[in-house]
Amino acid sequence: MAQNQPIEALIDLMARLPGLGPRSARRAVLQMVRKRETLLSPLAEAMQEVARNVRECGNCGNIATGEICDICASNKRATGEICVVETVGDLWAMERANVFGGRYHVLGGTLSALDGIGPDELRIPRLVERIPAEEVTEVILALNATIDGMTTAHYIADRLDGMVRLTSLAQGVPVGGELDYLDEGTITAALAARKAF
Amino acid sequence: MAQNQPIEALIDLMARLPGLGPRSARRAVLQMVRKRETLLSPLAEAMQEVARNVRECGNCGNIATGEICDICASNKRATGEICVVETVGDLWAMERANVFGGRYHVLGGTLSALDGIGPDELRIPRLVERIPAEEVTEVILALNATIDGMTTAHYIADRLDGMVRLTSLAQGVPVGGELDYLDEGTITAALAARKAF
Ligand SMILES: [Zn+2]
Ligand SMILES: [Zn+2]
Repeated sequence: MAQNQPIEALIDLMARLPGLGPRSARRAVLQMVRKRETLLSPLAEAMQEVARNVRECGNCGNIATGEICDICASNKRATGEICVVETVGDLWAMERANVFGGRYHVLGGTLSALDGIGPDELRIPRLVERIPAEEVTEVILALNATIDGMTTAHYIADRLDGMVRLTSLAQGVPVGGELDYLDEGTITAALAARKAF
Repeated sequence: MAQNQPIEALIDLMARLPGLGPRSARRAVLQMVRKRETLLSPLAEAMQEVARNVRECGNCGNIATGEICDICASNKRATGEICVVETVGDLWAMERANVFGGRYHVLGGTLSALDGIGPDELRIPRLVERIPAEEVTEVILALNATIDGMTTAHYIADRLDGMVRLTSLAQGVPVGGELDYLDEGTITAALAARKAF
């Protein structure tokens, strides 16, 4: 296919995004070229803006524009509760349910002996530090209901044992299910019925 | 959802691409943030490159980096045959089949009384000019097998009547089907069995 070089390069990159294959990447790029002023240029600028200004929150691991994310910086969020999630996507899923008023801690994954991911790779030491520093009284373990998620929850429960009240999302999260795929109602119910871990 | 402003803006733009909704846009943006150096920044640069350098071929309407596209500029393409397609996506589909050695003419859509799209909106005058200018002996009408596509094919056949040999892709293109969704084999067979229009 003797196609245009910059176009080919863009299609190859787009095809690496989750959910897009070569065909949908081609369609997306054609749409961009058709809407250069209203879509392509704004996309390029929005990406550059994110690349320049977005980083990890130094406190919780959420996405941030400054040193600290909007949630950690807000004085409207309860300081005594931390909800522990695996990824930023899971944090967003919790926020969409709009039912948790505390702060978060984003682990960045789960423990995995197979992949060589230990506690230090997961921002767990920082979680332990936050308990006294933010006078935390409850840690809600909102990990995915997968084997790795449960293993990680148990490890964290051991580390924080005696320091703080530990709860986990109620059953209601389907077994094997991932937070990011759940509707707001299920997340709301699971949080309301949370139980001691 | 009190999310990060630049992130929200990028998700909104990504969600406007064909095949992506709000959920897949969020997943794509999270992936970009995770892979800033290898995905986000290269994507931003590739888009800027396309926005700066890619335009319409002044001859055929294909995507081009210079005044004229690679296909029109190539001396390896037969000059006597023009394949008329609706969109650049259809041109790419023909090129993937790798069976046509001539040049293209991209109409940019189909005639549509409803949408007020007439011959002048469709680069049809330029097609008429190309017949003598490039000593064209055959025009292959490779429009989609839709009602608008057929209407447009008949209009072009009337305009070029007596100037040139007119053919169309053989049946083999499913009725109501669009070129961009066809496999290479079907396109190859349809082109090989093309018939006088
Ligand atoms: Zn934070
Ligand atoms: Zn051209």
